[in-house]
Amino acid sequence: LTISGHSWYIDSIAFNPDGEFLASSSNQVIKIWRVKDGQEVCNLNGHANSVYSVAFSPDGEYLASGSSDKTIKLWRCDRSK
Amino acid sequence: LTISGHSWYIDSIAFNPDGEFLASSSNQVIKIWRVKDGQEVCNLNGHANSVYSVAFSPDGEYLASGSSDKTIKLWRCDRSK
Amino acid sequence: LTISGHSWYIDSIAFNPDGEFLASSSNQVIKIWRVKDGQEVCNLNGHANSVYSVAFSPDGEYLASGSSDKTIKLWRCDRSK
Amino acid sequence: LTISGHSWYIDSIAFNPDGEFLASSSNQVIKIWRVKDGQEVCNLNGHANSVYSVAFSPDGEYLASGSSDKTIKLWRCDRSK
Repeated sequence: LTISGHSWYIDSIAFNPDGEFLASSSNQVIKIWRVKDGQEVCNLNGHANSVYSVAFSPDGEYLASGSSDKTIKLWRCDRSK
Repeated sequence: LTISGHSWYIDSIAFNPDGEFLASSSNQVIKIWRVKDGQEVCNLNGHANSVYSVAFSPDGEYLASGSSDKTIKLWRCDRSK
Repeated sequence: LTISGHSWYIDSIAFNPDGEFLASSSNQVIKIWRVKDGQEVCNLNGHANSVYSVAFSPDGEYLASGSSDKTIKLWRCDRSK
Repeated sequence: LTISGHSWYIDSIAFNPDGEFLASSSNQVIKIWRVKDGQEVCNLNGHANSVYSVAFSPDGEYLASGSSDKTIKLWRCDRSK
């Protein structure tokens, strides 16, 4: 299964704890994908510069992202969409 | 134990959750190895550019790879081979 | 939630095992944040050069950091502050 | 606690699963340290070029290392030393 949708190099990827979702960062954009069919479930914009690391919290509630814009963001994604 | 087989720098490595297999990426190529004897069990080709991150899903079913070719791929490897 | 406070690129991030805290490194400085409100709970200074990796121990007691200053440091942060 | 002993930048660090040991790589050299006192318990030489990633197997038996020398090595360290 190939997941396309980002417009630049994939900088980092991370599964959520139950393996149902996969987060990826590419340039300033973070996306969350459903593993079983590769559908994009969230598109997280807001960072002003490249995001080099993404990590799910152990309970899967939050996705943290560290960026070259000097900030860390904590995201929640409504995955029922 | 030394595992050889890649033709370029090893960019990333990851164990599967039960520790029986190890995935590695080097340039566009991803390989999965059996830990106990270092045998190659899968050779995953398909990315058009360097793969900088590999991660197993928590249940070990999938290997995700993020690449400079702007795509993410989800792989299943028939390890019984 | 956006966490600001670092003065340079965010190099690495890591959740502690129970997901209550998030560590980040930026240049020589490591900070630990409370996830629920983004408050800084520890500011860890001491490395003489950039810190490129941070990792919590599995029991959450220690944060390890690897730096370009050729040392590794193990930190404990009094999070009750 | 500051752990010194490497002669170059620390490239990667990883705790073993029970948190008792910490592995680090710096240039071609990998070392394993006891967390409680910072003592070096293993010095793993053999790679011909920089080691950019180290990872313990989930059961803690092996340390895998991926290197610019195009090989992956699996190490066991007699920690009772």
